[in-house]
Amino acid sequence: MCRWIAYRGETTALEHYVTEPAHSLISQSINALEATASVNGDGFGLGWYGEHPEPGLYREVRPAWSDENLRYLCRHLRSHLFFGHVRAATAGSPITRPNCHPFACGTWMFMHNGFVGNWSRLRRQVEALIPDQLYPARVGTTDSEAVFLAMMGAGIEHPVEAAEKTLARLTDFVNQNEPGDRLRFTAALSNGRDLYAFRYAVNDKANTLYYRESDNGIVVVSEPLDREHKNWVRVPEGHAVVALHDERARVVPLFHRHQVAAE
Amino acid sequence: MCRWIAYRGETTALEHYVTEPAHSLISQSINALEATASVNGDGFGLGWYGEHPEPGLYREVRPAWSDENLRYLCRHLRSHLFFGHVRAATAGSPITRPNCHPFACGTWMFMHNGFVGNWSRLRRQVEALIPDQLYPARVGTTDSEAVFLAMMGAGIEHPVEAAEKTLARLTDFVNQNEPGDRLRFTAALSNGRDLYAFRYAVNDKANTLYYRESDNGIVVVSEPLDREHKNWVRVPEGHAVVALHDERARVVPLFHRHQVAAE
Amino acid sequence: MCRWIAYRGETTALEHYVTEPAHSLISQSINALEATASVNGDGFGLGWYGEHPEPGLYREVRPAWSDENLRYLCRHLRSHLFFGHVRAATAGSPITRPNCHPFACGTWMFMHNGFVGNWSRLRRQVEALIPDQLYPARVGTTDSEAVFLAMMGAGIEHPVEAAEKTLARLTDFVNQNEPGDRLRFTAALSNGRDLYAFRYAVNDKANTLYYRESDNGIVVVSEPLDREHKNWVRVPEGHAVVALHDERARVVPLFHRHQVAAE
Amino acid sequence: MCRWIAYRGETTALEHYVTEPAHSLISQSINALEATASVNGDGFGLGWYGEHPEPGLYREVRPAWSDENLRYLCRHLRSHLFFGHVRAATAGSPITRPNCHPFACGTWMFMHNGFVGNWSRLRRQVEALIPDQLYPARVGTTDSEAVFLAMMGAGIEHPVEAAEKTLARLTDFVNQNEPGDRLRFTAALSNGRDLYAFRYAVNDKANTLYYRESDNGIVVVSEPLDREHKNWVRVPEGHAVVALHDERARVVPLFHRHQVAAE
Repeated sequence: MCRWIAYRGETTALEHYVTEPAHSLISQSINALEATASVNGDGFGLGWYGEHPEPGLYREVRPAWSDENLRYLCRHLRSHLFFGHVRAATAGSPITRPNCHPFACGTWMFMHNGFVGNWSRLRRQVEALIPDQLYPARVGTTDSEAVFLAMMGAGIEHPVEAAEKTLARLTDFVNQNEPGDRLRFTAALSNGRDLYAFRYAVNDKANTLYYRESDNGIVVVSEPLDREHKNWVRVPEGHAVVALHDERARVVPLFHRHQVAAE
Repeated sequence: MCRWIAYRGETTALEHYVTEPAHSLISQSINALEATASVNGDGFGLGWYGEHPEPGLYREVRPAWSDENLRYLCRHLRSHLFFGHVRAATAGSPITRPNCHPFACGTWMFMHNGFVGNWSRLRRQVEALIPDQLYPARVGTTDSEAVFLAMMGAGIEHPVEAAEKTLARLTDFVNQNEPGDRLRFTAALSNGRDLYAFRYAVNDKANTLYYRESDNGIVVVSEPLDREHKNWVRVPEGHAVVALHDERARVVPLFHRHQVAAE
Repeated sequence: MCRWIAYRGETTALEHYVTEPAHSLISQSINALEATASVNGDGFGLGWYGEHPEPGLYREVRPAWSDENLRYLCRHLRSHLFFGHVRAATAGSPITRPNCHPFACGTWMFMHNGFVGNWSRLRRQVEALIPDQLYPARVGTTDSEAVFLAMMGAGIEHPVEAAEKTLARLTDFVNQNEPGDRLRFTAALSNGRDLYAFRYAVNDKANTLYYRESDNGIVVVSEPLDREHKNWVRVPEGHAVVALHDERARVVPLFHRHQVAAE
Repeated sequence: MCRWIAYRGETTALEHYVTEPAHSLISQSINALEATASVNGDGFGLGWYGEHPEPGLYREVRPAWSDENLRYLCRHLRSHLFFGHVRAATAGSPITRPNCHPFACGTWMFMHNGFVGNWSRLRRQVEALIPDQLYPARVGTTDSEAVFLAMMGAGIEHPVEAAEKTLARLTDFVNQNEPGDRLRFTAALSNGRDLYAFRYAVNDKANTLYYRESDNGIVVVSEPLDREHKNWVRVPEGHAVVALHDERARVVPLFHRHQVAAE
């Protein structure tokens, strides 16, 4: 199980969120409070938007906690919208840079905490959702990248609808068998201007998703950056966070009709 | 364009072929005599058979010439059948360990110098040749690994026929367009007992293939390890080297009817 | 705090001790039972003796638990005397291959769990113990490598005396200030034939050291490989394990006069 | 022999100098026009100044030409003063990140193309030039880092004098033997505001040094970025380039009395 953080707001140095807080993403890479996998040492990644319309990426296979490059970059990179991710690999996906989050495709960026259960069986079906013209962008082998590219092909200009279409297909896939396979999808998506986050699961409990908003911006996380839990809004299962440019964030139900499971 | 060496014979330390000769594979990684790409610094790999029926692999994304681990391993690993490969990546395949040669699947091992032209267009067709039960073994994104797994699914117990079947499909694929795309396939394959090598091309000149045989064993290479060219048999295009256990190597035409192009 | 294992006995595949047991060194790299640092993800190393008089080394900066090369090597490498080490770096020593254990110098091999306290202050004094002719072997920057090379220069042909001489100097160094700096030294040393291990500390409690001996060989570890604690002999502080070729291991006090602290 | 570039001027994206030109630093990493070592694949580094008084560093052991992180960073990082360096390691210095240039110490940054001949013999003498309080900053093992830290201790607030003092000591060291050892020193140094470059050699020909200045800034390089040689000023041996903030660059002789060798 991975850990991630997404920020959108006033331009700031990444270090204020990625490396500095006592319970920053980097601290979480060694010891996550809520995660079931206590070590996230299987690579990490940063993605950020600057003046260029396409995001920058820094991804590395070493643990985040010992990467001196990461500390320099978090001190010097400033951005109004950035992602950070530390990975605990699921079996079967090798630790390579292209398998580290976030993923970029054109002006879009995506990262994920979760999995498509029974991936060996479902991989071909999920990859088939990727349109031909985007298939060259499939440079890794993770379920996460495949789901992102499927969303790209499902009409990404309407991100919530694209997520719903893709999640509906994935739900069908995992329910092909009896009992169904598990799906966990706690993800962030952005075009450099708007920020979206999703919390969804099938045949399983969803991974956590929180956010904290102020006049200066919004921080969306898989796990709170501090123990002041009252500062953090817990997003219910089957919901998305929509943080449009210059608007306050809204929490919207996925599929409009989704029944939130009792937690 | 990559460089490789395959050895089968008396058990020996790998260093005698991989790191020691003046024109060893490692020397070739910095400066190949015949190759068009003069630097093979995009990762490398060793594969070898020992007491375990499945081969061992050591693959690394750094250049071979500066890898201290490689020197230790070549001094200490002894084998009767081993492969070594240095890579010059073609555009589009990231430098990751799973994208480095050789590749292993069960008891089989494979490495390749060449490419499937227009890979972005043909990738899905080639990947579709991989049987479902072998698709989880697709841990990288190279054309080479996909072709290997396609061969595995085409009846690998008869390696020349499996190669012919797979190359026939690839030939169809590259000839779908007018003018046709290019295909270069100079590869080695083994089950730990028998050694096979192939030299083939479509719409292009094939990459070179040589071998040298003695009472002690056979060495098959993409490029001679020394300048004594008279010691090396040049394998013609459209042919395979078949070096069965305890037999002298034979050079056989692929497709029985293949017309060798004038070189 | 690091974790390590040393084996001397019948030639065996490394996997039986390094990767396979439920509480193998690799398992310990993610979750050590007794260690204070629960993650040993700051690089690792293997060292082994074969036919060549100098040991082979495989060292890598990535965590051991995700290194596919390590699994292949542990399956294929066979040795009568080998070391394995997983590292939790102390502040100030970067994660580089030359800073990973074990270290080799000529026919000797060494690894360490511990530290020289106040290393920034003492580093030059410790490095000054390394003889000029061995200083080129100082390829990293750790306290451990410096102590090893100091021992090499203190008459390594008599390993216990060399350790005592060096530890006496280190003890003087850490006691130069009031209160004294801390020193922890739990280390293994070999020439490919005999195996030595040491447990010592100044101004601090020593890191643990255990061994298990049978007719087939001896295993010395920083932490037992299984929970059958009765199988493991706990070595007292201020003592060395001397396992000469073809003899049963002996536990000898360091400095002959050392007072074992109550544990 | 390494290759490097230093820029000071209007704030710009690094890509315009590091990755984009036909003969950019990255192109040079595979094929240097004037260098004797034709491949610079032994790691690389970027250093840059931003809002923080200390420079940022990105250093990596893989070849620059295949590093996707580098391309993203060069597109997104903007700076008024930055260094780029590709390395061809000399024997004896392992390929580690701390051994990659540039080096940083406080607000100062340094990179080097050259060597201290007979480094195994002279290393201790050069390291002894580093003041105690700076010795913890010795995180690698290269001659270049040691010379930088020696300069730091020789009064770095007057950089040309500090270089002269240090080079005088080095000159004494290499001339201790008959015939003398060789020294090559073509280096860049900055405090984030002023840029200095040096070209010097003893018992050998100095590595090249060029610069190109316009109203927008100055570029100092080990080798011109294009074949328009008339645009580039060749710095004579035994001279320094002094490019103070808001002043035009000056070329000054080292030691005031230095005799420029005929080239």
